[in-house]
Amino acid sequence: MTNASPLWLDDAIWPVCDALADALRQRGQRLVTAESCTGGLIAAACTALAGSSDWLERGVVTYSNAAKTELLGVPAELIAQHGAVSEAVVRAMTAGALRTSGADWAVAVTGVAGPAGGSAHKPVGTVWIGWQGPGHAHAEGCHFEGDRAAVRAATVLHALQGLLGVLQR
Amino acid sequence: MTNASPLWLDDAIWPVCDALADALRQRGQRLVTAESCTGGLIAAACTALAGSSDWLERGVVTYSNAAKTELLGVPAELIAQHGAVSEAVVRAMTAGALRTSGADWAVAVTGVAGPAGGSAHKPVGTVWIGWQGPGHAHAEGCHFEGDRAAVRAATVLHALQGLLGVLQR
Repeated sequence: MTNASPLWLDDAIWPVCDALADALRQRGQRLVTAESCTGGLIAAACTALAGSSDWLERGVVTYSNAAKTELLGVPAELIAQHGAVSEAVVRAMTAGALRTSGADWAVAVTGVAGPAGGSAHKPVGTVWIGWQGPGHAHAEGCHFEGDRAAVRAATVLHALQGLLGVLQR
Repeated sequence: MTNASPLWLDDAIWPVCDALADALRQRGQRLVTAESCTGGLIAAACTALAGSSDWLERGVVTYSNAAKTELLGVPAELIAQHGAVSEAVVRAMTAGALRTSGADWAVAVTGVAGPAGGSAHKPVGTVWIGWQGPGHAHAEGCHFEGDRAAVRAATVLHALQGLLGVLQR
């Protein structure tokens, strides 16, 4: 996978964003994003669409552990016990994002985009993604190949495709 | 100005981000971003750099007025009085971002990226950018030409160039 820019995204993201906008508008619901490894790229993709303020309520880039705790209420003990890149933490991120924002749906990501930060147990490309909304919460552990930009791009696409899938059920 | 992607950024952004990373690392200081019209794109550009967790503490995408008030402490009356796209609000955004994050430097943007939302007094392309750090606070009212992607890209570049300028003084 080659990236023309560090903010390269697969063109497949744009029909997903369009469909997401339609689905949320039809329901009169709004989204909150909580991003660690993607660092704002999910929110940036959503807000690239004109009129996105209709359905994107807000986003947080909780890059530090302190930010995860202070902005999303993720318990510091949970991060210490499971690590920031874990199912427990991403589920706490979506729950906290909904609780603090009043939005209807939350998508959260936490992962190791690299090149540093990987371990034998959680190599570069390990990403947890969580989705939560009315009567729904799930999380998925992923492994994406490629460099930092590729891991981030794959995470953005998977996160928004996953949300669209839930909304279209 | 033509844009290959809705997240197109001028290549000039990358040397600016590199220099910003160096300047903040040398000072042992960290940055918080508070974005409205750019919707996460400033944070996404910063975090495109490997190792950015050394110097980017967190970011908020305060797309709604409620988010500006709840996440940054911008008084609702200030927004009602001056409008969300105003010097008063962008200065309150940087002050609130520093107060709530413990970061050393804040950059904030609020503007009309278009195509909707413009008025005679604040046409599409009107953007306020604020910078605040130790012993420093300033804000600038800008007008950027072009479509939504171009206005956002110009805002990202100007916001980060402005911060770098202050750090290099």
